[in-house]
Amino acid sequence: MDERALISTFFDRRPAAGRPARPDVILGIGDDAAVLRLDPGFDLVVATDSIAEGTHFPAGTPAASVGHRCLAVNLSDIAAMAAEPLWFSLALSLPESDEAWVGEFARGLFELADRFGVELVGGDTVRGPLGATVTIQGRARPGRTVLRSGAAPGDGVWVTGHPGDAVAGRLLLPEPASDPAAEALRQRFLYPEPRVREGMALAGVATAMLDVSDGLDDDLRKLLAASGVGAEMDAGVLPLSDELRSIRAGTALECALTGGDDYELCFTVRSADEPQLRAIATAWPVPVTRIGTVVPGAGCRWRLRGQALAVPDTTYRHF
Amino acid sequence: MDERALISTFFDRRPAAGRPARPDVILGIGDDAAVLRLDPGFDLVVATDSIAEGTHFPAGTPAASVGHRCLAVNLSDIAAMAAEPLWFSLALSLPESDEAWVGEFARGLFELADRFGVELVGGDTVRGPLGATVTIQGRARPGRTVLRSGAAPGDGVWVTGHPGDAVAGRLLLPEPASDPAAEALRQRFLYPEPRVREGMALAGVATAMLDVSDGLDDDLRKLLAASGVGAEMDAGVLPLSDELRSIRAGTALECALTGGDDYELCFTVRSADEPQLRAIATAWPVPVTRIGTVVPGAGCRWRLRGQALAVPDTTYRHF
Repeated sequence: MDERALISTFFDRRPAAGRPARPDVILGIGDDAAVLRLDPGFDLVVATDSIAEGTHFPAGTPAASVGHRCLAVNLSDIAAMAAEPLWFSLALSLPESDEAWVGEFARGLFELADRFGVELVGGDTVRGPLGATVTIQGRARPGRTVLRSGAAPGDGVWVTGHPGDAVAGRLLLPEPASDPAAEALRQRFLYPEPRVREGMALAGVATAMLDVSDGLDDDLRKLLAASGVGAEMDAGVLPLSDELRSIRAGTALECALTGGDDYELCFTVRSADEPQLRAIATAWPVPVTRIGTVVPGAGCRWRLRGQALAVPDTTYRHF
Repeated sequence: MDERALISTFFDRRPAAGRPARPDVILGIGDDAAVLRLDPGFDLVVATDSIAEGTHFPAGTPAASVGHRCLAVNLSDIAAMAAEPLWFSLALSLPESDEAWVGEFARGLFELADRFGVELVGGDTVRGPLGATVTIQGRARPGRTVLRSGAAPGDGVWVTGHPGDAVAGRLLLPEPASDPAAEALRQRFLYPEPRVREGMALAGVATAMLDVSDGLDDDLRKLLAASGVGAEMDAGVLPLSDELRSIRAGTALECALTGGDDYELCFTVRSADEPQLRAIATAWPVPVTRIGTVVPGAGCRWRLRGQALAVPDTTYRHF
């Protein structure tokens, strides 16, 4: 199957009439570029993220997971801006034209895309090492995006969901696990759920926000540095999942602090706005937990049961 | 040098004050996503194209050329829509952190970006085989983009510049050539000039358009198929450059018909609009040549001095 057949078979899902599904997609896949209509009164929000075999997922990762994850990591970036995702492009690099693999990849990709109503509007397919780059476009009202730079002393530091699950799950790849807790963690790595609706609901509530991709401690330090502040953090209140505690008994806390791939949201909220946050979050499928407080100065100081806790710098570096 | 240092040293060119250069870039590199302001009354035009070592350029290609080409192929896609390029993202895959290489890559990239006033607003850097994916955003007035599907019988078929030069130049890589004609061809491959201003000027004039990336015959067939028409073409009027005739004496015509990487524009114009086209094109730095006529039916029939000319299908296929 050549490139054109791959695209028309697996990726071009326009109805036969030639009309794309979203009314704001004036022209989708098939020409030199897509033509998209941004509603008046919105800014455009754009993110690009790549995943590559060996670096971001091990060889043997199910194709549906690769399709899911290449879009999920980008949806997560849009969520971390409190923006609404709209359209995306896909640059796919394949070592061979394996129709079964591409079919599964597309299934995982579109299952997620359809759930959030985002449409594939273009891309490129080349022969090369397995990997995918997605560029996503979203929208937000001017001034309503939540940047990394808005945290101020006194704000609470919050995180959604259960950090650490994904890295624990990654260590259990590639075979399905017979233990239910282990399999739950594995699914958390394979199919991370971007917190899109949660992120959008935080516009006007969060003062600063990012998504946890490199690890909670490492990513939080980026937010604090961008805001010119520090934080006092309590590792004792980290929302460790039962599955993580069960499977990684001795290292659950380390997983939560330094493990990447969670794609949870980490954000700051003024103390006065905590009741509003708690009211919003009652509708969420994941818990939201206050794990610290922004302070003047710099750096991120973790404590556990009153004792200072040194967090090892285990962040993955490409170079 | 780690990823953050690479980005801040070579790619983050915001002034110290933190303000990006284009006033419509509300937030550039450094957060989870960029925030961009599309002026009212415009549609968004988005293209994605990848280039990879071994497939799109040979090992040893100068880094400045790789930087130039990854953006040029995307500018060319926007040009082929008759749209105005605005912003781009870059996903760069590097086998190692080679500062000298990245510096040269960035020089080639930004030399071209600055010339067309487009701004880098985000991206991703990963370790992997050498390659780059650019996603570019442009704008056009609603209904003013030129698609592949608008050609009608009677329209003339036109091409800018000198097709065939780039493939001839590619065959002369990687060392600089002492022969001036050979070096000129080599430069045409290394530093293709996207026809951005020419493409924009063709809004309202061209009935269909694409850019020549895979080869003139192959790309023209895509345009004809999208328009549901055929064409009678005259290979005898193809604008072969003196350099191409000199270096590829026996195969100049084949280079022009089947060689890719030209990034010239191929488009159709109603006969009644030819005077307008000729008037516009007097300002262009490249010639524009009528090379055929759209006819009812399907397919692309080339003739040379009255004889039918079979064009071999030499299009590169990834799979």
